[in-house]
Amino acid sequence: MATVSGFPEFLPAGRMVEVRAIDILRTVFELHGFAGIQTRALEPVSDLARKGEITKEVYVVRRLHAQESDKVELGLHFDLTIPFARYVLDHAGHLEFPFRRYQIQPAWRGERPQEGRYREFWQADIDIVGLNQLGFHHDIEVVLVMLEACARLHDELGIPPVVMRLNNRKLMQGFYDGLGVPDPLAAIQVVDKLGKIGPSAVGELLSGLGIGGEQADLILRFASISTAGDDFADQVRALGVGGDLMEQGLAELGQLLAAARRRFPENVLVDCKIARGLDYYTGSVFEIELVGHESLGTISAGGRYDALASDGKRTYPGVGISYGITRVFAPMIAQGRLGASRSVPSAVFVAVDSEDTRGRAEEVAAALRLRGIPCEVSWSADKYGKQIRHADRRGIPYVWFGGVQGQVKDIRTGDQAEADASTWAPPADDLTPAVASTTP
Amino acid sequence: MATVSGFPEFLPAGRMVEVRAIDILRTVFELHGFAGIQTRALEPVSDLARKGEITKEVYVVRRLHAQESDKVELGLHFDLTIPFARYVLDHAGHLEFPFRRYQIQPAWRGERPQEGRYREFWQADIDIVGLNQLGFHHDIEVVLVMLEACARLHDELGIPPVVMRLNNRKLMQGFYDGLGVPDPLAAIQVVDKLGKIGPSAVGELLSGLGIGGEQADLILRFASISTAGDDFADQVRALGVGGDLMEQGLAELGQLLAAARRRFPENVLVDCKIARGLDYYTGSVFEIELVGHESLGTISAGGRYDALASDGKRTYPGVGISYGITRVFAPMIAQGRLGASRSVPSAVFVAVDSEDTRGRAEEVAAALRLRGIPCEVSWSADKYGKQIRHADRRGIPYVWFGGVQGQVKDIRTGDQAEADASTWAPPADDLTPAVASTTP
Repeated sequence: MATVSGFPEFLPAGRMVEVRAIDILRTVFELHGFAGIQTRALEPVSDLARKGEITKEVYVVRRLHAQESDKVELGLHFDLTIPFARYVLDHAGHLEFPFRRYQIQPAWRGERPQEGRYREFWQADIDIVGLNQLGFHHDIEVVLVMLEACARLHDELGIPPVVMRLNNRKLMQGFYDGLGVPDPLAAIQVVDKLGKIGPSAVGELLSGLGIGGEQADLILRFASISTAGDDFADQVRALGVGGDLMEQGLAELGQLLAAARRRFPENVLVDCKIARGLDYYTGSVFEIELVGHESLGTISAGGRYDALASDGKRTYPGVGISYGITRVFAPMIAQGRLGASRSVPSAVFVAVDSEDTRGRAEEVAAALRLRGIPCEVSWSADKYGKQIRHADRRGIPYVWFGGVQGQVKDIRTGDQAEADASTWAPPADDLTPAVASTTP
Repeated sequence: MATVSGFPEFLPAGRMVEVRAIDILRTVFELHGFAGIQTRALEPVSDLARKGEITKEVYVVRRLHAQESDKVELGLHFDLTIPFARYVLDHAGHLEFPFRRYQIQPAWRGERPQEGRYREFWQADIDIVGLNQLGFHHDIEVVLVMLEACARLHDELGIPPVVMRLNNRKLMQGFYDGLGVPDPLAAIQVVDKLGKIGPSAVGELLSGLGIGGEQADLILRFASISTAGDDFADQVRALGVGGDLMEQGLAELGQLLAAARRRFPENVLVDCKIARGLDYYTGSVFEIELVGHESLGTISAGGRYDALASDGKRTYPGVGISYGITRVFAPMIAQGRLGASRSVPSAVFVAVDSEDTRGRAEEVAAALRLRGIPCEVSWSADKYGKQIRHADRRGIPYVWFGGVQGQVKDIRTGDQAEADASTWAPPADDLTPAVASTTP
């Protein structure tokens, strides 16, 4: 609707594509032992409003006739990480750590609507959270699981291949500390815009933070380091800035790059301008783009967060990554690049020759359903030609005539044959709608 | 969290129960040719605020830093019928009518939290919408599909059997017209409370509408008619009030009862107090309760609406029914009456004997996953006993030791045997978590 933009909705065939994508993601996540959860859509605004730049886009929710008793101001979550951190704190006593979960839900941001930006969008997140500690090998694990999911989406749905850019907040923080930058987090958030706005605009923003001259120059040279090879560490060190934290970041980044490159040699590189705008990341950070579709922006991103969740006594360090389902699939569905072979689940359309024999058609349908064959009975006893066209417009492959001992017609070929509804079945390929890339 | 009540959240095993329930509903709906869609969570408040008593519970949504440009006030949908009617109008040019869809999503109501009431709750809706016309046989169809879904939930998950109460708005409207009631809709909404607040309280409310004496008496006698037999029509006529509209309602109700009773003889009856509070129903109305769990209230309800969606030129009459997933499953999960056999998807926990051989464990896991076996690699190289306990606490049935040529232990029986990760598979029953009733 023109009046409410930024909220994509799909026709049934488009939704079938989305469901198929979700099933692929879910299958990969479950193969790796991630358990599915859902969190409520609403969180206290106080929790949503302290996580960096996103704050101004939070949707606040109030009852139309609010009463004094509504003490906690609530808002719609804008990602699935903050709700998950809260979920872990709420339910910690009932969870086993390290806790690995996936979560596939919509999130909301009150952004100014524009191409490729949505106010309601589906995300698929995986995270692993430990109790007081969490091995670095889990950073590697979430990266490999998401790259595997992307590879499956490529193989099964023809989604373009991905490139994942890796960086590390310890490396950044250590580098900025070494440079003597007064507020490294502010600088990190500025540098994160480098890909979007370019070096001169970033230089201006840095200047607004009181960073200029050689400091700014070194930051921009640091941020321009981008390589799939192990030489990134030498390139960083060549800038002449250093320290323990930076070396720790370089070591983690090297380990992550090596492990990811071993499994996905074509899909990973180090890129020192990657920072992620959110303030809770503390170590590894990663971003994924679709090769040839860079204008879609980052379609998947995440990182390590060591202090997002804490109840005072215990902390729950975590690492996770999120996949932007809507960002990838909404344009592909809208452009018709992905489609379903029909717009309804029905494999068979059971014709009705008069309202008096509707019961007979219902018996046919019941016999087919008993064996798991989706079907529907014609809504009217129109002329057969009209009923066949009705089925054809929905892409239903078969029309049934007569009773349980009747005739079935493949309306794609026109072939018609006698059949028994208690034994006949369509070929397996016709049983459910097929989802496929429609571009060669 | 105590501060935000009314928003149920499940632990992973509880979510598995919910997913299983959703899968059963979806399977039945798709067998009957209903296509899945999703609508956005937000609708213009002007559309939400004109549908009867629910208005005061609407959650209004605003951007934290709202700007002048936000012209349309938005709210969270409180059911899936109004969004669906709007979806039909938005997308009518791309849909084939009659259009049959299912929709499984959360909805939100800012109710005062109380036992069995939720502010966020999942619903599963089916509706069939026609273009300008819709055969009455679709009223029968949605009733039979939902009763079939309830029967499956009973058979597969042990959900108690249901009773469906049927009524008809034309019958009510015709009866009230015949009585000379000035505002039948207001009276209908009052009578709808009969089951909750009893006849004397309803009498008082009717009196507030200017309805007393014999009129009120006849309304209460009418509303107390409840039978599984065809004598309901005679009982209504015996009250001495009549008219064409009433007779039309009696005929439809008789047809619906007969068709539903044929397939589900134990589960249906006519009940003239059933009205549904929402103002858009125009014909059949129905409500379902769980036998023996009447305190849960109505778990499924719906009806015929002939004028909910219209663009001025065309109308889209519809009929549908909604199943309250959260209302049924949240208490069952919370009380432990339904559970999953483990809290993670993993069928196998791959032990790690030292961090140096983690790579070998990863190879085992990769070999298992290649054949669709969900598994996870131990997060630490603790003593084997500790790793086994870690798997056991999650209900993972198997632990793998060594490399691809290794040993697999069933930790329920203690049996351990040599196995090859490229060929070994668990019994089919152990591959995915089983969901079952935990009460005998």
